[in-house]
Amino acid sequence: MNLLGTSIVGGSRGLAGSDCFRATAPGTGTALEPAFFAASRDEVDRAVTLATEAFEVYGRLSGAARGELLRRIAAQLESVEPGLIERAHLETALPVVRLRGEIGRTCSQLRLFAQVVEEGSWTTPRIDHGDPNRKPLPKPDVRSMLRPLGPVVVFGASNFPFAFSVAGGDTASALAAGNPVIVKAHPAHPGTSELVGLAIRASISELGLHEGCFSLLFDSRNRVGEELVRHPQIKAGAFTGSLPAGRALFHMAVNRAEPIPFYSEMSSTNPLFILPRALEEFGEKIAEGLFGSFTLGAGQFCTKPGLVFLVRGKAADDFVNALRSKVAESTPSTLLTSGIAEHYRGSLEVRRGNLGTRLLAMGAPASETLATTAVTALLQSEAERFLENPMLAEEHFGPSTLIVECQSSQEFLRCAAVLGGQLTATVHGTEQEIREYADLLRRLEAKAGRVIFNGYPTGVEVGHAMVHGGPYPSTTDVRMTSVGTMAIHRFARPICYQDCPESILPEELRDDNPIGLWRLVDGRFSDAKSC
Amino acid sequence: MNLLGTSIVGGSRGLAGSDCFRATAPGTGTALEPAFFAASRDEVDRAVTLATEAFEVYGRLSGAARGELLRRIAAQLESVEPGLIERAHLETALPVVRLRGEIGRTCSQLRLFAQVVEEGSWTTPRIDHGDPNRKPLPKPDVRSMLRPLGPVVVFGASNFPFAFSVAGGDTASALAAGNPVIVKAHPAHPGTSELVGLAIRASISELGLHEGCFSLLFDSRNRVGEELVRHPQIKAGAFTGSLPAGRALFHMAVNRAEPIPFYSEMSSTNPLFILPRALEEFGEKIAEGLFGSFTLGAGQFCTKPGLVFLVRGKAADDFVNALRSKVAESTPSTLLTSGIAEHYRGSLEVRRGNLGTRLLAMGAPASETLATTAVTALLQSEAERFLENPMLAEEHFGPSTLIVECQSSQEFLRCAAVLGGQLTATVHGTEQEIREYADLLRRLEAKAGRVIFNGYPTGVEVGHAMVHGGPYPSTTDVRMTSVGTMAIHRFARPICYQDCPESILPEELRDDNPIGLWRLVDGRFSDAKSC
Repeated sequence: MNLLGTSIVGGSRGLAGSDCFRATAPGTGTALEPAFFAASRDEVDRAVTLATEAFEVYGRLSGAARGELLRRIAAQLESVEPGLIERAHLETALPVVRLRGEIGRTCSQLRLFAQVVEEGSWTTPRIDHGDPNRKPLPKPDVRSMLRPLGPVVVFGASNFPFAFSVAGGDTASALAAGNPVIVKAHPAHPGTSELVGLAIRASISELGLHEGCFSLLFDSRNRVGEELVRHPQIKAGAFTGSLPAGRALFHMAVNRAEPIPFYSEMSSTNPLFILPRALEEFGEKIAEGLFGSFTLGAGQFCTKPGLVFLVRGKAADDFVNALRSKVAESTPSTLLTSGIAEHYRGSLEVRRGNLGTRLLAMGAPASETLATTAVTALLQSEAERFLENPMLAEEHFGPSTLIVECQSSQEFLRCAAVLGGQLTATVHGTEQEIREYADLLRRLEAKAGRVIFNGYPTGVEVGHAMVHGGPYPSTTDVRMTSVGTMAIHRFARPICYQDCPESILPEELRDDNPIGLWRLVDGRFSDAKSC
Repeated sequence: MNLLGTSIVGGSRGLAGSDCFRATAPGTGTALEPAFFAASRDEVDRAVTLATEAFEVYGRLSGAARGELLRRIAAQLESVEPGLIERAHLETALPVVRLRGEIGRTCSQLRLFAQVVEEGSWTTPRIDHGDPNRKPLPKPDVRSMLRPLGPVVVFGASNFPFAFSVAGGDTASALAAGNPVIVKAHPAHPGTSELVGLAIRASISELGLHEGCFSLLFDSRNRVGEELVRHPQIKAGAFTGSLPAGRALFHMAVNRAEPIPFYSEMSSTNPLFILPRALEEFGEKIAEGLFGSFTLGAGQFCTKPGLVFLVRGKAADDFVNALRSKVAESTPSTLLTSGIAEHYRGSLEVRRGNLGTRLLAMGAPASETLATTAVTALLQSEAERFLENPMLAEEHFGPSTLIVECQSSQEFLRCAAVLGGQLTATVHGTEQEIREYADLLRRLEAKAGRVIFNGYPTGVEVGHAMVHGGPYPSTTDVRMTSVGTMAIHRFARPICYQDCPESILPEELRDDNPIGLWRLVDGRFSDAKSC
């Protein structure tokens, strides 16, 4: 593990300039070697220029060739797994078993996108045959399919050092669609980023692809990210992180001379509604599941359930008591950065005793307190207070949740109405009961990208049907998802060919359908070999 | 034909306030009765409130029910066709035969979207079955499909009083997807707008649908449009028109507290490249086709070919001479509004003799000159001048085109490189020749939503494969099209259901597939009745 700390600019390395930073080990508070060097403006330009050159070639590679790259990256990551885990554990204090699982997920994700592009129907080819004899005018032959956008900038997230970082879902889906990627590394895990970046670079080089397909740039401030988003040759961007940062980058992207698609995945409280009969019958089990979900990864998941709505009564008391003892018995967590931990503690301070909430329970205090230490917290409020204090509906990142007691299920509806856009909303109820709460369900559908029944929002399944997205402020583009195979659509656009000679058409659009794609031919789905 | 001039606010009519305007007949310059009254702020609010209420019901109607509405609107329009044509001819001076054709196209478009939503696979249902026995964690059952966004604002365009106006493609696709629509009528054809709006309202009422599914608001200024785009309950918008207006509305939409998707279709010069052998072999035929295309609708099409690139020589001279005589023989046109005509003449004045261009030919002068009169113009420049004067690459709306003579086909590439985003790019060439110009073709693909071979960009076919969209500034969203059935995707978002009881799932996602949709089931396309 020989880290240089310089940016990866295509096949070369950046310079070791004067603007440098070190990662801090959240588990000990010590600064980690080596120093990492912010990319210079020249390095940003060089990375974008290389990406633009690479696009000319990489954007036209076959799905099979792009799939090979994704598979190679997965294999490379697996081959250096011990080093990745060691460094990531130092930089994030996340447990080794979690990091191992996350690398597994990252590699499966790369292979899933490989499958999608090798198969190829994601390009949604459409063919409308012409008719030279149509009256009054001949009908042209019109064919279209999705094509990549161009160089994409990806911002690594702090809370998933693999699955939402350098080789995470954004990079995998952008590369899969045929776009070169420039990653702005998250400064909280630069060493992990460099190692993953080197694995990607090695894969590109082994396959003889253009070096500009991938670059990784460091910076502990905002400059490099802004230069990338504002660069005229960058054609799309993706970010996972805080609301202020995600919103700022989105505004930069859409207010450029040429606005570009920009996908920020930002802020969600992931409300969970427990309907009365479910609370009565399964309260204890739900308390257990909920505790596991809101403390998973020390509550640092975008899908952490931060608001729990239930109707006052004996069952609610039992539920709250069960949750309270779990929280009281919990041990302290180490958060990813001192900044996240400060924010967690500050928001907790504002919430407890203020805004009509009270602190029901806290975990055991830490024997030795670091700047990154956080104690699990359970807060409680009433619907009336919740409705009066919009701040309570905001995300509180870290191991806490807020129980909102309602007088009646009518108050569920009023509370649901004031919620902002969400990645997820969860309902616990018997089947019969959920049908009775159709109004609530409709309201939640309107607010969230994913509605979960009798489960928990953490643990996002990477598949074809997953939607990890939702109305603002959970994301900046309600039409898209950042997890699952549909994420590839963020980085593509339709191109149409009218009366194009067969020998010039892309394979996907030829009558003989050489790749055997599913296509919409004259309005009908078909995978026929000729049409 | 009894026009009131007041806005249509759901099932009611707005008030006749003090802020009013009249349409002007472009063919005579006279003001037309009656007066039209700008919608008040209250009327805007009322329309949006009704649309929000309507969405709760209309957004959940079956595809069959929404299809019935679209078909009813088409039938209603056909039943009042003579009145529509009479008024539209007065307000636009477009020929009756063109208006009749445009109504036909508008009705076919409504019926095509009806077909799409009746069939239903446009919702792209995806099912990933769960696996309770998966280790280490059970796999949840995850299903997703597209759902409507909510109330949509549509801005009527001046140049297609039917096909891109009140009941045009934006309205048809938004209603098809399940969204209530509020149209801001274009002030150049308010009477036509009122008649079409009444036909839509009658269709809604006959089918017993919620009155809030449709409203039509008048205003000759910007206020009503801005209030609509800024209204928190509006969830998307679509506009066809000028670059400054489209860009301003887009910025309003993305800079709201909750940014929303906004589709402006704005500005395109639709470059046409004639390769040397095609010029030699088919020059005369191309001159004829090109003349027809750039003068169609008096050059007031978004797809008017405004730039023609060819290589200097004998064939080019012959081509230019053929075009020149056609232009010289042409009769004057009446443009849609005096504003458009002034802009046309002003831009022509700047171009002719300046910016390195020269006027090759003009049509016959008008015997009686109105503010709306325009004379066809043919301009010429050299590639060097074109590259020096970026203004020449801007859209010039109206019956003119600019021939750019290149020294060599290398200059084709340099010229293509400086073009902005386009709705279309056209290449004329023999099949062999087009293959030789692969670099040019790639560059054009990167710039345009549609690439046309040996044809002309005007006359956009409404089908499944059509893309009427492209990189900025041709539109504000390169991922979408405003013509063809893919346009429906602009007004929908994916919603995901995790472990949802079968009895609560939307029909589209049930295992028994009652509507017989094409779905992606566990990663495979299938229309099987059970899965």
